[in-house]
Amino acid sequence: MLEIRPIQDSDWPQVHDLVVEVASAGETYAMDVPRTVAETREYWTGQQVVVAVDGETVLGSAKMGPNRPAQGAHVGTASFVVAPAARGRGIGRDLGEYVVKWHRVEGFAGIQFNAVVSTNTGAVKLWQSLGFETIGTVPGAFRLPDSSYVDLLVMYLRLEDR
Amino acid sequence: MLEIRPIQDSDWPQVHDLVVEVASAGETYAMDVPRTVAETREYWTGQQVVVAVDGETVLGSAKMGPNRPAQGAHVGTASFVVAPAARGRGIGRDLGEYVVKWHRVEGFAGIQFNAVVSTNTGAVKLWQSLGFETIGTVPGAFRLPDSSYVDLLVMYLRLEDR
Repeated sequence: MLEIRPIQDSDWPQVHDLVVEVASAGETYAMDVPRTVAETREYWTGQQVVVAVDGETVLGSAKMGPNRPAQGAHVGTASFVVAPAARGRGIGRDLGEYVVKWHRVEGFAGIQFNAVVSTNTGAVKLWQSLGFETIGTVPGAFRLPDSSYVDLLVMYLRLEDR
Repeated sequence: MLEIRPIQDSDWPQVHDLVVEVASAGETYAMDVPRTVAETREYWTGQQVVVAVDGETVLGSAKMGPNRPAQGAHVGTASFVVAPAARGRGIGRDLGEYVVKWHRVEGFAGIQFNAVVSTNTGAVKLWQSLGFETIGTVPGAFRLPDSSYVDLLVMYLRLEDR
């Protein structure tokens, strides 16, 4: 039975393993692979961090909060990891729906994803199904493991008019 | 006689004053106003930081480097401040030209500006004159001092094909 809840201290070793696995694959995030749990905690931070758990097992995580400080803090952002072995169980969708609801409750005007890898079609389709639109494309801004270059997409969901 | 050169330790108090002045105006950057020179040094950082000086007087500054780590590090970015009292002397253009040349020499594939305030028309026109194109628009993502909301533009200059 899958549950999404705020992260607890004891979850961090599992979240670290997840982030390392996803970062090492190198296909969805422009990021260095964190070397320690402490580095993961420093990187995987936000106003809210949640985990998707099945019992004691962490299968995914999302972090969320303002995309920019001060004059830009009314637009949120989020990042997601899902365990490769647990894909197809709707964990990404559950986390995505949680993130959208969280931003609505917190009164954000919208949600901006800054760098969705264009070849990560599962994610692109998922965000589209939640109402996100591609509002920008940065050509060739992401280097895949085979050293080819693909676009990064800026995606946006409007939550309220400002 | 205006010169652009790498920042020196003794420049930081003047750069701090500049950043505070521009951040306090609240019209061009989504940022908190730094409270100390140390906070400015932490914020105004990059692979390269330069100042535009007239003798001993700092009239502007730019910071530049990769926009993202790892898989995204071949695209650069930069930020600029120019002393309000020194506008109209071409300092922004000189800094912009320096930044473009620096990225070419360092072998970057392009330069991405992540959040150009759409009402900052002087900057928008300057970047366009240097070849930048608007590749994305985040609706209402910036709150002006009068509490109206304006768009943030993602601008990009391609330097080489990847």
